Amino acid sequence: METLSDWASHGGRQQVWKHASRETGTDMVFSIFLPPGAGPFPLLWYLSGLSCTHANVTEKGEFRRVCAALGLAFIAPDTSPRGEGVADDPAYDLGQGAGFYVDATEAPWAANFRMRRYIERELPEIAGRHFPIDRARQGITGHSMGGHGALTIALRNAGQFRSVSAFAPIVAPSRVPWGEKAFAAYLGADRAAWAGHDAVALIEAGARVADILVDVGDADGFLETQLRPDLLQAACDKAGIALTLRMQPGYDHSYYFVSSFMDDHLRWHAERLL
Amino acid sequence: METLSDWASHGGRQQVWKHASRETGTDMVFSIFLPPGAGPFPLLWYLSGLSCTHANVTEKGEFRRVCAALGLAFIAPDTSPRGEGVADDPAYDLGQGAGFYVDATEAPWAANFRMRRYIERELPEIAGRHFPIDRARQGITGHSMGGHGALTIALRNAGQFRSVSAFAPIVAPSRVPWGEKAFAAYLGADRAAWAGHDAVALIEAGARVADILVDVGDADGFLETQLRPDLLQAACDKAGIALTLRMQPGYDHSYYFVSSFMDDHLRWHAERLL
Repeated sequence: METLSDWASHGGRQQVWKHASRETGTDMVFSIFLPPGAGPFPLLWYLSGLSCTHANVTEKGEFRRVCAALGLAFIAPDTSPRGEGVADDPAYDLGQGAGFYVDATEAPWAANFRMRRYIERELPEIAGRHFPIDRARQGITGHSMGGHGALTIALRNAGQFRSVSAFAPIVAPSRVPWGEKAFAAYLGADRAAWAGHDAVALIEAGARVADILVDVGDADGFLETQLRPDLLQAACDKAGIALTLRMQPGYDHSYYFVSSFMDDHLRWHAERLL
Repeated sequence: METLSDWASHGGRQQVWKHASRETGTDMVFSIFLPPGAGPFPLLWYLSGLSCTHANVTEKGEFRRVCAALGLAFIAPDTSPRGEGVADDPAYDLGQGAGFYVDATEAPWAANFRMRRYIERELPEIAGRHFPIDRARQGITGHSMGGHGALTIALRNAGQFRSVSAFAPIVAPSRVPWGEKAFAAYLGADRAAWAGHDAVALIEAGARVADILVDVGDADGFLETQLRPDLLQAACDKAGIALTLRMQPGYDHSYYFVSSFMDDHLRWHAERLL
């Protein structure tokens, strides 16, 4: 574990760390905000979208003021393994920066692209060892591809992540171009292997959480082709999951959207974790 | 005037504009946040520091939530003219990105580096014509080199800018390395020409504002060599200017510092403009 940066911010500390990951076989970088005080703090995970690193939300997410006020720690992992020797693709939506929070089974991705276990198991263990966080009080959120990650990880691990929300999530990657491309590459052509990584499919197969908060901008250019919140609404209605789906008028897919509603998501998680 | 970007954010609009500047003879880019509602809105100017463009505070400044709540418009100009044919220097602290808010008199800078008149005259006129702002209610703030800009512009134009604050400002550029280098290049070797662009010298020469809010981090690496808030404190004490100087423990020179205290500065200006 190596500290790359450590800033005072909003009364707490915003830090960036690098560590050698057992799962990905690479160095991985993540950021953590620690609120003022001694802890142990409840922890919110934030999973980022295509082409992002930890830095996007760390710089643009506007989460620290309310995290400091609520006493909430906030971790933003990277979106894939990176570096020389790690498989990649020239497209922004495959390879480095586009891990899709799955454990790849197909060559050349299987060697390093193990973001599911990294987020579900390895990084929570590391966080619990190195920081004053309370592993019994973890929530998870994310944006776009990271919203997909947050929903699927929460649905598969409802005991570990006690609250879940998402900003403009890809709710049914098996049925939209971004997900079809990535899952075919990482998981292979057999769509049966995809269902465990698709929030709508997981709910249809019986996975449950108590409630979900989702914000989507109605001017988001990916709304109808990639995000499809209507599919999540239908699945939650049928399953009896209390989905709060808010279509935000005029908002797009950017961090200007995410930061506008960050406070509401932080308070949603705090109500379920504090 | 050309719109480069226009995002919904915190209930208002965050826009980026490009226009041909009469003063600099180049295209100039600035950002403006317009709160919800019809206006006319009081306006806060934010001048950025060395190497910055409008984008740094626009992405990292965390100002929109409170500007929206208070009904305050917020403009962030660029820090110099830019582009092919505009003089430059390889160093980060001279030339493009380092205009120091002066009107250069020396070659090769004099042709385009007219940031004083651009900020004091041209851009307020443009803003008044194109946006629902109330030119009778303008305040000004800034960071580092932009804090120098805010203080000097307010001291020279107290009737135009009714409130002033600064984050980690260079308060006496005539007496510190950043300012000595830039002023010698832009204004020439005669230090008499520098005094009109030095906040402490302006106060010593009789310029007055009612009050000033300044935040500086006590872990700011530039504190003793470049910023020297002690000189501003001494000048304000002698002149009877009510300076609120807050040394913020543990904070550095970054936007993690600026964003942590942005709310306080917005409220300071709102109390004097609303």
